[in-house]
Amino acid sequence: MALAAGRVGPADAIARFTLSATAGERARSPITEFHRWWAERATIERFSVTRVPFRELDGWHLAGDSENLVHRSGRFFSVEGLRYRGDGPGEQSQPIINQPEIGILGILVKEFDGVLHCLMQAKMEPGNVNTLQLSPTVQATRSNYTRVHQGNMPPYLEYFRGPDRGQVLVDVLQSEQGVWFWRKRNRNMIVHLTEDVPEHEDFHWLPLDQIHQLLKTDNLVNMDARTVLACMPLARPSTADCSPDDPFAWALLNSYDEELGLHTRTEILSWFTESQTRCEWSVQRIPLSEVTGWSWSDDDLAGGDEAPFRIIGVRVNAHNREVTNWSQPLLEPLGHGLAVFLAKSIGGVVHFLVQARKEPGLINVVEMAPTVQLPAVAGAVCDQGAVAYAMEAAAADPRRVRFDALLSEEGGRFHHGQTRYQIIEVGEEFPVEVPDEYCWMTAHQLMGLLDHSHYLNIEARTLLACVHSLW
Amino acid sequence: MALAAGRVGPADAIARFTLSATAGERARSPITEFHRWWAERATIERFSVTRVPFRELDGWHLAGDSENLVHRSGRFFSVEGLRYRGDGPGEQSQPIINQPEIGILGILVKEFDGVLHCLMQAKMEPGNVNTLQLSPTVQATRSNYTRVHQGNMPPYLEYFRGPDRGQVLVDVLQSEQGVWFWRKRNRNMIVHLTEDVPEHEDFHWLPLDQIHQLLKTDNLVNMDARTVLACMPLARPSTADCSPDDPFAWALLNSYDEELGLHTRTEILSWFTESQTRCEWSVQRIPLSEVTGWSWSDDDLAGGDEAPFRIIGVRVNAHNREVTNWSQPLLEPLGHGLAVFLAKSIGGVVHFLVQARKEPGLINVVEMAPTVQLPAVAGAVCDQGAVAYAMEAAAADPRRVRFDALLSEEGGRFHHGQTRYQIIEVGEEFPVEVPDEYCWMTAHQLMGLLDHSHYLNIEARTLLACVHSLW
Repeated sequence: MALAAGRVGPADAIARFTLSATAGERARSPITEFHRWWAERATIERFSVTRVPFRELDGWHLAGDSENLVHRSGRFFSVEGLRYRGDGPGEQSQPIINQPEIGILGILVKEFDGVLHCLMQAKMEPGNVNTLQLSPTVQATRSNYTRVHQGNMPPYLEYFRGPDRGQVLVDVLQSEQGVWFWRKRNRNMIVHLTEDVPEHEDFHWLPLDQIHQLLKTDNLVNMDARTVLACMPLARPSTADCSPDDPFAWALLNSYDEELGLHTRTEILSWFTESQTRCEWSVQRIPLSEVTGWSWSDDDLAGGDEAPFRIIGVRVNAHNREVTNWSQPLLEPLGHGLAVFLAKSIGGVVHFLVQARKEPGLINVVEMAPTVQLPAVAGAVCDQGAVAYAMEAAAADPRRVRFDALLSEEGGRFHHGQTRYQIIEVGEEFPVEVPDEYCWMTAHQLMGLLDHSHYLNIEARTLLACVHSLW
Repeated sequence: MALAAGRVGPADAIARFTLSATAGERARSPITEFHRWWAERATIERFSVTRVPFRELDGWHLAGDSENLVHRSGRFFSVEGLRYRGDGPGEQSQPIINQPEIGILGILVKEFDGVLHCLMQAKMEPGNVNTLQLSPTVQATRSNYTRVHQGNMPPYLEYFRGPDRGQVLVDVLQSEQGVWFWRKRNRNMIVHLTEDVPEHEDFHWLPLDQIHQLLKTDNLVNMDARTVLACMPLARPSTADCSPDDPFAWALLNSYDEELGLHTRTEILSWFTESQTRCEWSVQRIPLSEVTGWSWSDDDLAGGDEAPFRIIGVRVNAHNREVTNWSQPLLEPLGHGLAVFLAKSIGGVVHFLVQARKEPGLINVVEMAPTVQLPAVAGAVCDQGAVAYAMEAAAADPRRVRFDALLSEEGGRFHHGQTRYQIIEVGEEFPVEVPDEYCWMTAHQLMGLLDHSHYLNIEARTLLACVHSLW
C-alpha cells in the first residue's frame, strides 16, 4: 500500500522543485555554460520562413461552404469562425484557430548530485521573432506523435507515453489563449527519471533557478516552457538559500506560506464560482464565411482598423525538424499584448490581484487572469476597476516594477506574438477593497489551483512562473 | 490576517460535518420526529400533475426554423438537438435539454448543541414518482431568483446571496446528466449560519447521519440533495462513534484515511488527464429539426425502439409554489437506470472502481462515473471491462450488495426518472488490475475531487453520498 520505494510522493516533489529553484552553486553547470551552448545553437541556421500568398500554402485550402481554412489531412488545425454575445448588446464575430487535439508539453526532470534539473530544448518555431527559443523537452501535437505528417518522432517523447515512461509528477490539461484559440488545451507534464537518458545537442539540463533567471531575458523562454514551469509547485524556500534584502522580497517569501492569506481557499473558490455564475455569455463556433467585417486579400485575412490580429501564410524550410519543409497559416497579433500582476504586501504577505476574465474561446469562458490584460476582449464590459488598474500599471514608479520582460506567445501558431509581462508592486495607499471581478491571492494559493484545469489562464500562468524569478 | 473570530476554517468544517455524520443521540430530535413531520407533509395535497398534448402547453411553442421547443420568455429551458461523433464510425443525434443558466442547490447548516444540522425541505416536483421528496433548503434556478415568472421568492434564498449571506463552506459548480442536459451545471452550496432563522412548516433540521440513513429509502432524498451532500467532505470517524462489526466495514473506515490508497492523488489526476486526452469525440448543438429518427405526435416527441427517453408535456396545478399553475415539457426516461460502484478491500482499505465515462452533453465529455452505469451512451465503445463489471454486478451475492435503493432524478425536468443505485462488495478473486478506462479510488480521494468542477458525474456523486450511509 505504501508508495513503491524510490518513487516521489507529492510533498517530496514540492521539496525537490524548491531545492532546484534555489540550486545556486549546486547546479550541474554554471549559467555561463548555458549561454555558451545557446550561442552555439543560434549559429546553426536551420530554418527560413517566408511570407507567401494563401494560394501558395501547400495542402491548405478553403473548405466548401464554410470557407474554413483547413489542411487536406483534416488534422493539425483550421481557421474557423466564432460568434458570441458578451456583456453588452449586440454580437461579436471573429476568426479563431480550432485545434481540437490535445498535445503534450512535457519537461523531463532528473537529479544530478541531488539537485533536480530540467531538460530544456533549443527549438525553432516559424512564428518566433528570433527563431530559436528555450522550450520544454517535448512539445508535440497529437498529429506529431500519431505521425500524420510522416516525419520523425520528436526526441524523448517515449518518456511521456506508454508503459515505460518515467514517474509522472505533474499531468494536467491547461487552456491556451481564449481570444485566439477555440477551447484549446494542452497536456502539461513533468516526468521524473532516475535512469540516464541519451544526450542530444539541442538539449541542455538546467536547474529551476537558472530557468527562472532566464525568464527575465526578452523572448528567450517560450510560452510552452512557461506554462509547464507554472505547474511546478514550490514551497517557501529556506532563508539559508534565499535571504532577500528588502521588505517586499521578504513579504514575497511569505506568499509561499500555506497558512497565510487574506482569503481562505474556500473563499477563493466561492469567488470564482460566483464569477462563473454571473457570466451569461453565449458563444458558438460558426463557419469562417459567416464572420462579419473580415475580408481576404491575396496575403491576409484582415478585419477592420480595430481588429487585434490578422491571418497570414508562411512557407518554412527547415533542416532538423520532423519534416523538412511545410507551409501553414499563422495568426499575427497587431501590436504587443500587456499582462500585469499588481502585487501588494498585505499584512506582510505579497498578494497578487487576480481578475476573473471572460474570453470567448475558453471552455468555461471565465478564467483567472492577470490584473491587467490587454488588448481587452471585445464585448466584455470594461469596468472602473480595469481602467484604474491599467492606469496604475502605466504610471508605476520604475523602482516598483519588479518584473518586466517582453515574452513570446506560441511560435507554431502566432507570428511575432509578443506580450509585455510585468509584476508591479503597489503601495500602502492602494486599496485592499476591490471590485467583484477581482480577488487577492498569494503565490501558494495560485500554485494550488494549477493541479486542475480551467482556473488560471495562460497569461496568468506565465506571470506566476515569473513570480518565482523574484526570489 | 487570521480568520475572523467565529468563522469556520476548512479543516474545522470537515470536523463538523464528520461529527454530524455520527450524531446519534446528539441529534436535535430523533428520526421518529422526522417521520412524523414527513407523514404530515405528505397528507397536504398541493399538486396535481396532468399529461397534456403539446398544443396545450401554455407559453411553450416550436420556434421558427429550428423547431426547438422553447418558452415564450426565452428563459427556463428549451428542448433542442445534439449531434456527436463518438468512438465508432457514424454520427448520433438526439434531443437534449438546454438550460444555460446556473441555478443554486443550497443547504443551510447550523449547530444545535454543538452538532451541525441541515435544513431540509419537503418539496414537490411535477416529475416525481411520489410528488414529495426531501430536498435542499434552496433549489432555485436563476429564473426563480431573477423573478422571470413573477412568483414569490423561494424561502431562505437570501442566506445564499448578497452581502448578508452566511459563511460559505462549499460553493462549486457541478455537472448534471450528460445524456439529457446540454452542459448543465448547478451551483452546489453549503452555507453556515450562527443566527436563528425563521421556522417554516415545509422545512426540518436533520443531522447528517439521519439524512444518510434516509438515503436507503426508495425515492425519498432527491437528486439535488444528494449532489450537495456529496460535496460535504468527511474525515475518518472516531471508533468511539463508529464501531463496525465486519471486516468490510472496518476497511470502509480506512477508505476515509488521507494517507492510504492504491494510487497517489497525482496518479489519479494523471489517469484522468490521459482519459480526456484519448477522447476524440466531437459534439455540437443543433436545431431540434435536424435530429434524425425522432418524431412528434400530439403527446410526445419519440425516437425509435432503442431510444432511451421521450419528451412529454404536463400541466401542474399547485398551491404553495412560487407560481400557482404552469405547464412544461418533461423528459421521460423509458425504464430505470442502473449505477453501481464495485467496492473492493485492497490492503485493508475499501476502494471504489471509477470509470472515465463519455457523455455528449458534458462540457469536457469525459467525467468520472460509477463502475457500471446504464443505459450505456450511444456511440461509446462498450469495452470488455464494462461488460464484465455489469455481469459481476448482476450476479452479485445479495450479502455483498452493501447499498441498494431506487432513487429519483430531478423531478423538475424528468418524469418518473429513477435509477437503481448499488454499492457491491467484490472479493479477493476480483482483479486489482483494470482496463485503462477504470481506476480504483478511496472515499477520501473521491471527496477531495469535489472541491472542483468536472470530475465526478452526478451518478457518481449520488453513490458517494450513499457510501457515507454504510458507516
